[in-house]
Amino acid sequence: RRGEMAKLTQLIDNDVFRAFATYATIVLLKMMLMSLLTAYYRITRKAFANPEDTASFGKGENAKKYLRTDADVERVRRGHLNDLENIVPFLGIGLLYALSGPELSTALLHFRIFVGARIAHTFAYMIPLPQPGRGLSWAVGYAVTISMAYRLLSSVLYL
Amino acid sequence: RRGEMAKLTQLIDNDVFRAFATYATIVLLKMMLMSLLTAYYRITRKAFANPEDTASFGKGENAKKYLRTDADVERVRRGHLNDLENIVPFLGIGLLYALSGPELSTALLHFRIFVGARIAHTFAYMIPLPQPGRGLSWAVGYAVTISMAYRLLSSVLYL
Amino acid sequence: RRGEMAKLTQLIDNDVFRAFATYATIVLLKMMLMSLLTAYYRITRKAFANPEDTASFGKGENAKKYLRTDADVERVRRGHLNDLENIVPFLGIGLLYALSGPELSTALLHFRIFVGARIAHTFAYMIPLPQPGRGLSWAVGYAVTISMAYRLLSSVLYL
Repeated sequence: RRGEMAKLTQLIDNDVFRAFATYATIVLLKMMLMSLLTAYYRITRKAFANPEDTASFGKGENAKKYLRTDADVERVRRGHLNDLENIVPFLGIGLLYALSGPELSTALLHFRIFVGARIAHTFAYMIPLPQPGRGLSWAVGYAVTISMAYRLLSSVLYL
Repeated sequence: RRGEMAKLTQLIDNDVFRAFATYATIVLLKMMLMSLLTAYYRITRKAFANPEDTASFGKGENAKKYLRTDADVERVRRGHLNDLENIVPFLGIGLLYALSGPELSTALLHFRIFVGARIAHTFAYMIPLPQPGRGLSWAVGYAVTISMAYRLLSSVLYL
Repeated sequence: RRGEMAKLTQLIDNDVFRAFATYATIVLLKMMLMSLLTAYYRITRKAFANPEDTASFGKGENAKKYLRTDADVERVRRGHLNDLENIVPFLGIGLLYALSGPELSTALLHFRIFVGARIAHTFAYMIPLPQPGRGLSWAVGYAVTISMAYRLLSSVLYL
């Protein structure tokens, strides 16, 4: 089994692959923060979706009034869903792109801009900044993913 | 580092892996189109979720009336979420399946049917076609993913 | 091409990678079950989101009354979305972690606890159990993912 392990180690020793692993992990941890932010707003705004979550506030009508939507909670949830919609394509396309043998400097540029754009998008959504702040940060991440997809399809296309 | 790069190149030179990379990228690009479609409907139907998105329509009550839901916007959003729910399992199971050494012709059949079914699902949802058009296209993609999962677990099971 | 195939086979013969493939597939199949559960509740509660889905109940007002939300359907949908929000980071971080050469016993511990926590989360959400049942099962899966991310970044960091 020694030989196999060595080969796996070689994959993770590849610089482009290591860079992808680093940036993918950072942007996934950022996305995971949205769960904590949702919990924070649900608790401070007292706005819950499940009856069992309001049981500590008492019984009957007293607890029922906390089963409601709140503008801040809904905003975080939209931000979280937007993350899913954009980070899933980055993970899939980015991993395959990283394995398709791109130049290290080009790959780093893609990964860094994408992660920077998604962090900017979160700030633009949560503060919130006036448009087109959020729209632009979204578009930059989207364009980076398209660029990796183009490079990937150019080098591996097999229909 | 030359030797490691060569090994990475070998992964992407594998035909099954190249086929997976191609079809995964196509179906992710299709999913990304849903974002543009949502933006298109939000703008043409003037139905937005965030106050900052309606600022260009004026101030106060004038802009506030565009903070609303619209049947077409909600339809695209449901289609987008359905993509996420089905394409995420395809990406995870499909990648591992592609690495488990399946026959090229069998793998191609799985990838092509899945991507075809998801494209059909989008048309069935957006036109919309009468049922069971959308239901069947959903079920075909679902069955393909189950089939890959079965093949994968049969060959790699390690609990 | 023979040599390349052999190398691919070696990846899937690695025990940590096989374990990841097994547990990732199990947790994705569990997530896919949420789609069937949603369909089950939509049909038994007669609560649909699309007009074309209610056509079999007749025409006009008769069918329109089934275009409604239902507490059970919404609960499954929230559970499904929570799966997506937590399983996507597990897939991305877990795959890269599995390739970063962890000890087999440590890796198995992470994979098993995560999958167990997500299955427990589903039962806690669907039954539903009183809090903090669901909250704790969510937190365990979250902590496992953070632990893999920490281990991964420690070994591959490349900014």
